[in-house]
Amino acid sequence: MEKVNIKNKLSLFSDYWSPKIIGELNGQYVKLCKLKGEFVWHKHDNEDEMFYVIDGLLKIEFRDKTISIDKGEFLIVPKGVEHKPIAEKEVSAMVFEPVSTLNTGDTKGDFTVEKLDKI
Amino acid sequence: MEKVNIKNKLSLFSDYWSPKIIGELNGQYVKLCKLKGEFVWHKHDNEDEMFYVIDGLLKIEFRDKTISIDKGEFLIVPKGVEHKPIAEKEVSAMVFEPVSTLNTGDTKGDFTVEKLDKI
Repeated sequence: MEKVNIKNKLSLFSDYWSPKIIGELNGQYVKLCKLKGEFVWHKHDNEDEMFYVIDGLLKIEFRDKTISIDKGEFLIVPKGVEHKPIAEKEVSAMVFEPVSTLNTGDTKGDFTVEKLDKI
Repeated sequence: MEKVNIKNKLSLFSDYWSPKIIGELNGQYVKLCKLKGEFVWHKHDNEDEMFYVIDGLLKIEFRDKTISIDKGEFLIVPKGVEHKPIAEKEVSAMVFEPVSTLNTGDTKGDFTVEKLDKI
């Protein structure tokens, strides 16, 4: 049992759209991710997904609106809802979702990370 | 689907040791709590519990050690592990745990909150 310091963990990687596992509890992963640019449209059929912004401004496009999530804010995207994260400048975010969740959901492609690193 | 601003939510209550529900996903609650003073020794037989400190310094005593969690840090307390949170000065923390989790675990008493408010 060790505490986790978010800033320390953020200093350990620099690649975008490649979530790192920093914790696990009750079948859920706590992940840390750096985002820059536009991600792909996707949805998770069976998993709700929480984005908590540590630094920067994260925009998440939905089919009918866009929600901007600032530092110290979070958004829970319910299962089945199509979304597309966009970070005009670098964003650091903590993500909570089940262990089973694939980052690109139902849209496998270049952004898909099958095997996540634990840091 | 609405984003949640942690600081705004913190401004809505002032009572200590009374977790408020601010989100729900995958059978887990996201809770916000203000802590001051000493809590009771307890454990959760079936639930891991994550404490993410928003403000202040949270100490968690275990039977064999004490871990201090500062702002921007978190600790996951595994199921079955006895612990006692202590906040010498006011602490604000976000807590992640299953919907089924009772705040005082196996130690029902004055601190027990059976019905949590959603804010």
